[in-house]
Amino acid sequence: MSLIVQKFGGSSVANAERVFNVADIVTKTYAKGNDVVVVVSAQGDTTDDLIEKAKEINPDASKREMDMLLSSGEQISASLLAMAIEKLGYPVISLLGWQAGFQTTSAYGSARIKRVLPERIKKEIDKHRIVVVTGFQGVNRYDDMTTLGRGGSDTSAVAIAAVMHADLCQIYTDVEGVYTADPRKVPNAKKLSVISYDEMLELATLGAQVLNNRSVEMAKKYNIELEVLSSLTRVPGTIVKEATKMEKMLISGVAKDENVSRISIIGVPDRPGFAFRLFSKLAAKNINVDIILQSVGRNGTKDISFTISSDNLKEAMEILQSYVESTGANYLDYNDNIAKVSVVGAGMESHPGIASDMFEALFEANINIHMISTSEIKISVLIDREDADKAVSAIHNKFFDVE
Amino acid sequence: MSLIVQKFGGSSVANAERVFNVADIVTKTYAKGNDVVVVVSAQGDTTDDLIEKAKEINPDASKREMDMLLSSGEQISASLLAMAIEKLGYPVISLLGWQAGFQTTSAYGSARIKRVLPERIKKEIDKHRIVVVTGFQGVNRYDDMTTLGRGGSDTSAVAIAAVMHADLCQIYTDVEGVYTADPRKVPNAKKLSVISYDEMLELATLGAQVLNNRSVEMAKKYNIELEVLSSLTRVPGTIVKEATKMEKMLISGVAKDENVSRISIIGVPDRPGFAFRLFSKLAAKNINVDIILQSVGRNGTKDISFTISSDNLKEAMEILQSYVESTGANYLDYNDNIAKVSVVGAGMESHPGIASDMFEALFEANINIHMISTSEIKISVLIDREDADKAVSAIHNKFFDVE
Repeated sequence: MSLIVQKFGGSSVANAERVFNVADIVTKTYAKGNDVVVVVSAQGDTTDDLIEKAKEINPDASKREMDMLLSSGEQISASLLAMAIEKLGYPVISLLGWQAGFQTTSAYGSARIKRVLPERIKKEIDKHRIVVVTGFQGVNRYDDMTTLGRGGSDTSAVAIAAVMHADLCQIYTDVEGVYTADPRKVPNAKKLSVISYDEMLELATLGAQVLNNRSVEMAKKYNIELEVLSSLTRVPGTIVKEATKMEKMLISGVAKDENVSRISIIGVPDRPGFAFRLFSKLAAKNINVDIILQSVGRNGTKDISFTISSDNLKEAMEILQSYVESTGANYLDYNDNIAKVSVVGAGMESHPGIASDMFEALFEANINIHMISTSEIKISVLIDREDADKAVSAIHNKFFDVE
Repeated sequence: MSLIVQKFGGSSVANAERVFNVADIVTKTYAKGNDVVVVVSAQGDTTDDLIEKAKEINPDASKREMDMLLSSGEQISASLLAMAIEKLGYPVISLLGWQAGFQTTSAYGSARIKRVLPERIKKEIDKHRIVVVTGFQGVNRYDDMTTLGRGGSDTSAVAIAAVMHADLCQIYTDVEGVYTADPRKVPNAKKLSVISYDEMLELATLGAQVLNNRSVEMAKKYNIELEVLSSLTRVPGTIVKEATKMEKMLISGVAKDENVSRISIIGVPDRPGFAFRLFSKLAAKNINVDIILQSVGRNGTKDISFTISSDNLKEAMEILQSYVESTGANYLDYNDNIAKVSVVGAGMESHPGIASDMFEALFEANINIHMISTSEIKISVLIDREDADKAVSAIHNKFFDVE
């Protein structure tokens, strides 16, 4: 007998028919003799509808009251799913985040789970009940409702799996698993049967929005085996687990991120401390910097280029404008018409040819590379945004089209 | 400085405009230097919509899961009202039933408040915040969500007023107060400026659905002054308070109840214990008996008639059918085409002429009386249902049309 945590997103419970589909998956798992804890998001567009209601009344409502409002969404979906499971004749109970012991930080709207006190869940499991828990929410030290932010239900599921020492945590979504590239764009993209935590993290960061990043980090930390699969087609998905447990794949996927912009500061006087002050100004505004490239310029100056999320471009430029002038740098420049394309693979470190194969594929497709960045399991290039899809296809064909 | 509890029903917060109307009432009360605790019901038809959603999935859903579902309704209205109050620039916080310390019995769907632990509300009042509390809900000893049943938000408000020693508990509704008769039926019905708890209780029982009965009982027990008033027209309503504090009104109102049926058992052998066994059978099924009339029949037999809510008629007849046969009574008979019309007045006990005035009014209107029942502050008559409105008008004119 195993303990299995199953998480279902909003589209999986969007209407009564879908709710019964989920109830069917859950009760079949239970009927095989497993203990089952289900984590559920708000139905379909419920969260967006509630945000709309709030905006009508107060677009600047406090985050505390927004969390009070939004946490009602999962309350509705969890109780409806429990009713469907009752209808199928199985013992079940739904629990809110605070009832299930989710204690979070106080950061309304983007709280982090501090701990999960599993007494209540354990008690219900001991009564042989299926336990349905509201994802995405908890309470802070003041006993006030908090939400974990978008995608937080994945993290809720992994947190329960960790604290309950679950044998498997299944993340049901609207895709069948993790692919070697976006299957809507690359027709011969293949579903991976297994991928390591680190590879999954790199892919998630790169815009393959299958799993919430924090949930993968937590799964890695507590060594929880994840499975990403579809609630609609009942086929095996992709297992995410520790790399040491599996044969390392040379390349696990090709991904692109089009929500990226480059900022360059040209002709910076070559004095110590510039980079530190520059990036601490951005960090103070919670602006994450991704790729950083520094090159020696002429006449004792240097050039610094870096990428950030396009969402932060306007704010970052405002912060830098006056600062850069005060340092005596020549000028500030940006490009928001670029994309980052990456290959990810845990086996890469022992195969030095990957980078040159990737660059060859881009050369053959006549795509110009602006910047290059590498890590142990990833190679990223910055290219024109209009070339992004072509680049992904070319690289994917190079590595996966082996027939 | 006073502490005022204000309760708003679902129609008072049905949409964004109404929510701001309530926010305006609340903040004006606060701006006058009062501490304010607001109790709010679910918006408009939210509760009915949620029930509809549940029925689509499982018409026999457990009451526990129904309460989990339904309690989300007030969570939404309370947070939206708090956002509107924020928008008007006042300090505010919304609290769920469990956060506000509402501990109830475990009877899901019709829980009773066991106690209110007011620490959190007091803490927020001390911070000079307006406190918005979800009505209608609490948690039981298992920390599971419970609802108080329809109209329970009135009781929530009075419970807070009691535990916080509030100076006034205002129940905002869609009528302007308590009237001497239903103003939609009796054009010259007058709004009462004041009424006693007991009179209000009798009127509520009689179908003048202004205040939930349990809330009036609780207000009486803790001596909380209530005001019933409209959230739309800003005029003084009706104060409900202890009779000793005011000049006793001779008659405070005339009310009718059309949801009533009479059952008669004719020719019961005159042996002890019959009535006891009869009514305990009904009590076991939670069927409340109202007026009871026992008359001596012929040949050592007696007749027993009593009234019950028409909702219970079918079930009561099924229970009684076989029992009555076994006792050797002649026959069982019912009439579901009747109504109860009553006059209520705390001053009645010292004015013996009220009953004869009432009967005279009915006689002049050519209305036949089937049964009569009296208490210290109430006289009720059972008449044909088709005569009910005419009877209310005739009696009302007799007592109130003094010009």
